[in-house]
Amino acid sequence: MSRLDSFIRRVTAQRDVLDHISAEVAGMDGPVIELGLGNGRTFDHLRERLPGRRIIAFDRALAAHGTSTPDPEDLVIGEIRETAPAMAGIDAALVHADIGTGYADKDAATLTWLPELTARLLRSGGIAVSGLPLEHSELAPQPLPASVSQDRYFLYRRK
Amino acid sequence: MSRLDSFIRRVTAQRDVLDHISAEVAGMDGPVIELGLGNGRTFDHLRERLPGRRIIAFDRALAAHGTSTPDPEDLVIGEIRETAPAMAGIDAALVHADIGTGYADKDAATLTWLPELTARLLRSGGIAVSGLPLEHSELAPQPLPASVSQDRYFLYRRK
Ligand SMILES: C[S@@+](CC[C@H](N)C(=O)[O-])C[C@H]1O[C@@H](n2cnc3c(N)ncnc32)[C@H](O)[C@@H]1O
Ligand code: NI
Ligand code: NI
Repeated sequence: MSRLDSFIRRVTAQRDVLDHISAEVAGMDGPVIELGLGNGRTFDHLRERLPGRRIIAFDRALAAHGTSTPDPEDLVIGEIRETAPAMAGIDAALVHADIGTGYADKDAATLTWLPELTARLLRSGGIAVSGLPLEHSELAPQPLPASVSQDRYFLYRRK
Repeated sequence: MSRLDSFIRRVTAQRDVLDHISAEVAGMDGPVIELGLGNGRTFDHLRERLPGRRIIAFDRALAAHGTSTPDPEDLVIGEIRETAPAMAGIDAALVHADIGTGYADKDAATLTWLPELTARLLRSGGIAVSGLPLEHSELAPQPLPASVSQDRYFLYRRK
């Protein structure tokens, strides 16, 4: 399979998982945390699915399209590992993390801190959606929607 | 429709159009020109569909994944408008251009030079696949595969 084919599957899986959980998140208090704003396409999708919800986005550099740039108070620029721990305890309803790189060594380094960070950002019962698998005792894996193959995108609930 | 939804449709359309024409390109002499290498996912797809074919990729900066970086002799770094005209007359079998930005004014500026450049890179009978519409007297619009809606991706044949 080409990298284009697997990218299409990954981005489609991301969208399908977010659509799968958005009604439940809509009924839960707490902000949404977007780790890895990038071009802002997923930010735009979340904004559409969760109208009015506060979405706080993180990236090491602003590279979003002008129409998908958060307000300054909802945008945190810097290394997520350094900036996001300040928001531990914010009781987020949803944390979405799309910060895989396609390099196994870089992703392994990310996974030394991302699961714990995610658990600390979420409220009890809150949801984590991630492109990288999050192994953490407080994050319980959840069934994926039928359209998404195992290991393409990951879904958890904070205990 | 969110920007994520329309991105998924656009990238899927790109893949479907390239798959639609790849058998014909495989039977035609001439290099493939990739205008806008980016992450290199489409480069990887073209390489898989057209094994052994020379693919020359252009970008203003190298941002490709390590596994999808062309050999140095097939990579041209710089503004495409300035670098690619040197290859006019190369008789390419396929020119693929994925250099839209999502900003109407920037895309309009690109369209002042991209159609003519594309026509000059292609052989007679060669194929152009583009994310932006190419209006040029020598580029005849071709029917899209059934999965692709009109105006999501564009397909032409050089007269
Ligand atoms: C794959 S992109 C996200 C794409 C996004 N979902 C969209 O819709 O455009 C990943 C982004 O995360 C950022 N990123 C990755 N790891 C990071 C880190 N450790 N700290 C800060 N930003 C990071 C990158 O700069 C990049 O913009
Ligand atoms: Ni913990
Ligand atoms: Ni001409």
